Amino acid sequence: MTKPVVDLTIVGSIGIDTIETPTEKREEILGGSASYACAAASFFTHTGMVGVVGTDFPKAFIDTWATMNIDLAGLQTVEGKTFRWSGVYHENMDNRDTLSTELNVFETFSPELPEDYKEAPYLFLGNIHPALQLHVLEQVRNPKFVLIDTMDLWINIAKDDLTQVIGKCDMLTLNESESQLYTGKNSLTQAAKELLNLGPEYVLIKKGGNGSMLFTKDDAFLLHAYPLDSFKDPTGAGDTFAGGLMGALAASGKTDKEAIRQAMVYGSITASFGVEEFSLERLTQLDRDEIEIRVEEFKEMCRI
Amino acid sequence: MTKPVVDLTIVGSIGIDTIETPTEKREEILGGSASYACAAASFFTHTGMVGVVGTDFPKAFIDTWATMNIDLAGLQTVEGKTFRWSGVYHENMDNRDTLSTELNVFETFSPELPEDYKEAPYLFLGNIHPALQLHVLEQVRNPKFVLIDTMDLWINIAKDDLTQVIGKCDMLTLNESESQLYTGKNSLTQAAKELLNLGPEYVLIKKGGNGSMLFTKDDAFLLHAYPLDSFKDPTGAGDTFAGGLMGALAASGKTDKEAIRQAMVYGSITASFGVEEFSLERLTQLDRDEIEIRVEEFKEMCRI
Repeated sequence: MTKPVVDLTIVGSIGIDTIETPTEKREEILGGSASYACAAASFFTHTGMVGVVGTDFPKAFIDTWATMNIDLAGLQTVEGKTFRWSGVYHENMDNRDTLSTELNVFETFSPELPEDYKEAPYLFLGNIHPALQLHVLEQVRNPKFVLIDTMDLWINIAKDDLTQVIGKCDMLTLNESESQLYTGKNSLTQAAKELLNLGPEYVLIKKGGNGSMLFTKDDAFLLHAYPLDSFKDPTGAGDTFAGGLMGALAASGKTDKEAIRQAMVYGSITASFGVEEFSLERLTQLDRDEIEIRVEEFKEMCRI
Repeated sequence: MTKPVVDLTIVGSIGIDTIETPTEKREEILGGSASYACAAASFFTHTGMVGVVGTDFPKAFIDTWATMNIDLAGLQTVEGKTFRWSGVYHENMDNRDTLSTELNVFETFSPELPEDYKEAPYLFLGNIHPALQLHVLEQVRNPKFVLIDTMDLWINIAKDDLTQVIGKCDMLTLNESESQLYTGKNSLTQAAKELLNLGPEYVLIKKGGNGSMLFTKDDAFLLHAYPLDSFKDPTGAGDTFAGGLMGALAASGKTDKEAIRQAMVYGSITASFGVEEFSLERLTQLDRDEIEIRVEEFKEMCRI
């Protein structure tokens, strides 16, 4: 058997974002969960993107991904406008309001995997409708490790679909408030226990600037976030974290707890770079050596 | 020279608290920064308490401290009522409202150190008016390591006094919002840099259930909080953390960075027990072995 061309398949949204922070407003920039996650993963492994854009999608954005060596065989271009999102961040950058969401070509999206993606051992089901996540999962032949992400919207309007697909994955990731929304539990350890009962071996709760917590039925792994002096745009930080994690895990070829701890560190550090600028602006300027240097610095900060 | 009787002197408030959480209300229970901090420190080293109570102070509370082997030579009892505080916690237990504060005997408190406390190598200036903290510091002959805590009230009404005494200490601890209030900086790393410029070698920012961060001019140490399934009352958690830290540091006899990292772990774990019940109820039932077991479990959770 020949080695698959792509080690990691990532499906998710691709969007054109308009983002306002307390200090800056940026219009029509490249965004979406698949875009952030693939960019992060591309530092570590050969990554294939599955997503949809409209005929209005700028060629410059496609070039950005191609320059990062992201495989685009799973990218569909269909007649119509690309998915658009706009949001505004509050003073503390912890919270944001969505100003508008236009699904556009995303509304009728049916993700289809190129043949060689179906053989990829690692799969990241980024944040899209859980029915589409399931549709992707069903096309993959023999996945070694599947991570699923989601958002409050799907918990609110498609919880049954979501629950079904979570049960078929190895790891579930969501943020603090989403874990509380799904379970109705304030305590993150209690929420994690309930989510583990849905089937996944790992539950990874993201806490933004306060780090992340990985739970199994037997133990936990606690990871701080790298302390940044300043950052410009937290959009996509969770996708960057998850993409970097899956990229590093795919590169290791492993799926055990120790490998996952190391992969989480790489995901977290990649995300710490990502938020330094809007969109993929920092990630496109980043090289692997910078990641390694910050990883070493970070490990020393966390050493007890 | 004979070894001092007390290795660690702790000054702070002693109060009778009335506390309401979403599930429970407890009236007239033992509280105050000195009470929590001394209880935590007492697991590790011989600790002397400096504080004031009124003639209404229950003998049972004194017995609680005595049972924990806390040295009470620095405790003054004066005519009048003990300091009282009451507060109510919000649904998420992250925020609280103060319902009432009665200073009572605290209003005219002038902390005086017994002779042998003046020789104690470690000093924790718990949360009281910065002028009183300075008054205590001036009585100590040759301290090896001084930690100072404070609160938003003193930043708002006595910032000059506070700034003066901070400059004479080795370590400053405050919580996230206090560090932002003092410096006007949202970024904790920026806030820490500004606070380090006041003089202390270490700035320790507490983030409650999200852990803590220790900063020096050269580096940082990031510590998660132990993940609790549930907890009953976060009152005094910061004092317990700081008291445990100073107790463990005094027990080590050291003041270097590595010793401080270890001491922070002990402080954090002691605080994780403290919040499991109201007042000192869990700490009085706790033994050193339980602390060691949880410390080991916690280190494994944080190992990268």
